[in-house]
Amino acid sequence: MKQLVLSPALQADLQHVEQLILERIKSHSAVMNVAGRYLLNSGGKRLRALLALVCARFGQNEPASAVHAAIAVELIHTASLVHDDLVDEAERRRGVVTVHTRWDHGVALLVGDYFFALAAAEMALSPDPRIITYFAHAAMTICEGELSPVMTTTPLETALEQYYYKIGCKTAALFASACKAGMASGGGTDEQINAMECFGNDLGLAFQVVDDILDFVGDEQTLGKPAGSDMRRGIITLPLIYAVAATQDERLAAVVDTQDEDEIQWAIGRVKRYGIEPSREAARSLIDRALTYLNIFPESEPHQILSDVATFVLERDR
Amino acid sequence: MKQLVLSPALQADLQHVEQLILERIKSHSAVMNVAGRYLLNSGGKRLRALLALVCARFGQNEPASAVHAAIAVELIHTASLVHDDLVDEAERRRGVVTVHTRWDHGVALLVGDYFFALAAAEMALSPDPRIITYFAHAAMTICEGELSPVMTTTPLETALEQYYYKIGCKTAALFASACKAGMASGGGTDEQINAMECFGNDLGLAFQVVDDILDFVGDEQTLGKPAGSDMRRGIITLPLIYAVAATQDERLAAVVDTQDEDEIQWAIGRVKRYGIEPSREAARSLIDRALTYLNIFPESEPHQILSDVATFVLERDR
Repeated sequence: MKQLVLSPALQADLQHVEQLILERIKSHSAVMNVAGRYLLNSGGKRLRALLALVCARFGQNEPASAVHAAIAVELIHTASLVHDDLVDEAERRRGVVTVHTRWDHGVALLVGDYFFALAAAEMALSPDPRIITYFAHAAMTICEGELSPVMTTTPLETALEQYYYKIGCKTAALFASACKAGMASGGGTDEQINAMECFGNDLGLAFQVVDDILDFVGDEQTLGKPAGSDMRRGIITLPLIYAVAATQDERLAAVVDTQDEDEIQWAIGRVKRYGIEPSREAARSLIDRALTYLNIFPESEPHQILSDVATFVLERDR
Repeated sequence: MKQLVLSPALQADLQHVEQLILERIKSHSAVMNVAGRYLLNSGGKRLRALLALVCARFGQNEPASAVHAAIAVELIHTASLVHDDLVDEAERRRGVVTVHTRWDHGVALLVGDYFFALAAAEMALSPDPRIITYFAHAAMTICEGELSPVMTTTPLETALEQYYYKIGCKTAALFASACKAGMASGGGTDEQINAMECFGNDLGLAFQVVDDILDFVGDEQTLGKPAGSDMRRGIITLPLIYAVAATQDERLAAVVDTQDEDEIQWAIGRVKRYGIEPSREAARSLIDRALTYLNIFPESEPHQILSDVATFVLERDR
């Protein structure tokens, strides 16, 4: 399964969210208007908005009650991406020229800040004030994760601990808060909100593991960057960690410090051979665990959609 | 008057806010901890926090109810400064090395983002949810202001319009929201909240006009930058606008495009002679107007403090 199939009602809700975001980002500044719209249209699956909307449907409240959470989470996500690209000096994301490349560093920084502030204004509209706390803490965690690099590939236990801490901050925290905020907006019990947080966290971890796998095996055209781009920038991810563990090869462990293209190509080959399958297995385990948290919910349409999302996260090729 | 004299109770409240901010900024990331504390200790008068605390005292609620507004406004202000310095590539602020110079661009960007998120979390603790909307809109306005340069010194009317729009966004919006949020936290009526917004807005405009005057006439040691530093960076401020209007000198109007030190020194002399006094007059008028908004409040300790703050803003030399 490569494509998520959504009910017409849910599609309509997502389109409504998209429309509202476009209205919200209108600014008195002409540059902000153009850059904001450009940023928003630079792709993005709106997966986090979908999670908030779907989780809310388990609750007693109107499904529309989660619309503010859905808008806010996409604004925070988009803001963190544009700032992330700025820190990394990335020229493109998913093949599209980044805001700081198209305009300049100042515009990218300010559009990100503007989107963060818009997210806060949006959360204030929510009938459930708890979502502000959820998302604010997720945004803080994203920043902390950016400043916590994976330092080593060995020993395996240390490497895995650093890696999962990093992606827990960078990706899973926002997935978790999207699910939690959706469930809270929908009027869920504390038990339901906690379960959704756990589900979202594992789903987010799996999402990032798959992202890191795709960085090695994905289609370069689709990704808009060459294979092994993380490794080229000295970033240690799960496939490399597992490949080093499997081969016990110090030459492979040293690859994050090299600029030598032959060495990099060699290393990519080793990672593909030894690191991808155990990483996929890790992603599968995370998804299996994520699904167990849904057991407290009745079989229902939202239950089915969350299972489909979990499968999509695992099997996506972009 | 160069120094604000505060009652022991208010001093204690401000110290409490300072202590809470130091606790709030503790992070799981070691770099964030150190850089956050460094940033917070890099000066700052906590004037915005003071405004929130004082305005709250006109209301019926406990004075402590405004503590969240006071913390949030200082976090937003600090975040916007560190991002502002990043955009401007400023090496120092008030003589202290900036975060991106001491660490790097990524750290400065992320500490700013972290402080914004902390502010949102803080606002969520406030008993009055309206303050989130106030501060979120102020933060959006700051971004819009950064992207709206003053383009011209002539004609005067256009230049003044652009200048006051810019400083209204950049400085006055946050002053206004600090006063408004303080008054709302204190349990003020809509009329009182509106009056405080107007007071804060004019006070903020005057504050920025004085800042722009000090950029020409202030002590270089104290400011940590040479006289006329705005003009050197091509930024048009009120003293230059008035100097051009008074002299009708095209050579002076062209100074923002030059790198020639002799020309700059000549222009600084002209601005000091022709631009400072009308700018001071403008600041005085703004302060006079600000004080009229306080007429609806009874003579009282907070009333006296706000008058003192207004005098301080006008007469400060740093």
